[in-house]
Amino acid sequence: MQNKLFGFISKYISITEEEKNVLLSLNLFQSVKKGTILLKEGQHSKESYFVLKGCIRTYYIIDGEEKTTAFYTEMDVLTPHCVINQTPSDYFISCVEESILTITNTDMEAEVNSKFPKFEIMCRKLSEELLAKKQIDFDGFKTSSPEERYLNLLENRPDLIQRVPQHQLASYLGIKPQSLSRLRARILEKKS
Amino acid sequence: MQNKLFGFISKYISITEEEKNVLLSLNLFQSVKKGTILLKEGQHSKESYFVLKGCIRTYYIIDGEEKTTAFYTEMDVLTPHCVINQTPSDYFISCVEESILTITNTDMEAEVNSKFPKFEIMCRKLSEELLAKKQIDFDGFKTSSPEERYLNLLENRPDLIQRVPQHQLASYLGIKPQSLSRLRARILEKKS
Repeated sequence: MQNKLFGFISKYISITEEEKNVLLSLNLFQSVKKGTILLKEGQHSKESYFVLKGCIRTYYIIDGEEKTTAFYTEMDVLTPHCVINQTPSDYFISCVEESILTITNTDMEAEVNSKFPKFEIMCRKLSEELLAKKQIDFDGFKTSSPEERYLNLLENRPDLIQRVPQHQLASYLGIKPQSLSRLRARILEKKS
Repeated sequence: MQNKLFGFISKYISITEEEKNVLLSLNLFQSVKKGTILLKEGQHSKESYFVLKGCIRTYYIIDGEEKTTAFYTEMDVLTPHCVINQTPSDYFISCVEESILTITNTDMEAEVNSKFPKFEIMCRKLSEELLAKKQIDFDGFKTSSPEERYLNLLENRPDLIQRVPQHQLASYLGIKPQSLSRLRARILEKKS
């Protein structure tokens, strides 16, 4: 797991043995059981998550109903917006699978960044990249039909279709579970 | 306009007279006519935009039809994802109104950041904030009905409703222009 983390970091900056040791001393790795709720609506948090293994999801509860907005799997990073804006969270985060996460908090990040300014550069590059990714995802969602969204998912994140419950997947695609079933049947029919 | 820019920067970092002069020497301000296309699909770009006055929009052309995905008005920042990912743009950017923009490019940013490392901190904070904003917007879009999206717009960006053509607004809300007209009529009826 350490090598996965260091591999990820070295995509952005070079990292020395000393820096690696500082990071290791922070005890960043956590195993989290399936179903664990990492953040609840209304809570304050300073924590960001980097998924080394497994899957976590963000969801809202609106009129008693869960609305899944995102899944984060291997090598994905999530800094909830409540952490940036220092406001109570308006959503939940839970583990879809047993997961291994790197959990950092803003105090720790500030300390590491002031000690090793190049981590500031990494954080900037990473945030820019995540912003670009979010822009692409949002535009893709806005400009496509539910069927196109599903086909897009099949192409870009086929593993998700196997890994997450269908009602969560439907919600993530912005459709009802029955519509997802019909849509899948239609696509299978076209293929056959 | 200079004061607007420096006011914006000083939300993130303190800025000295020397640094202000360096920024001013870069000739960042540009007046852009209504209708000007700043970026075309397929083009490469290194440019980011900060709107001091006016409004720019991003849109895709899909099957010959324009799909508007975002509007950027006063104090909004746009770094197109093609700039971050160094890929050809998959959308267009045009000026909805006569605008005054600060246009920077990645080479210039790298130079300023290496000269004044605190600008790196500003870029990091700004990217994080934009990412949080994009998360909120995307989640809001995904979890609400077209009517809720319109009411949300009325509450948070009422100026947009006056400033941009209705067909662009409809597309931005992910609905057909006729649906937007019906929706507005329904809301007005409820209020009266």
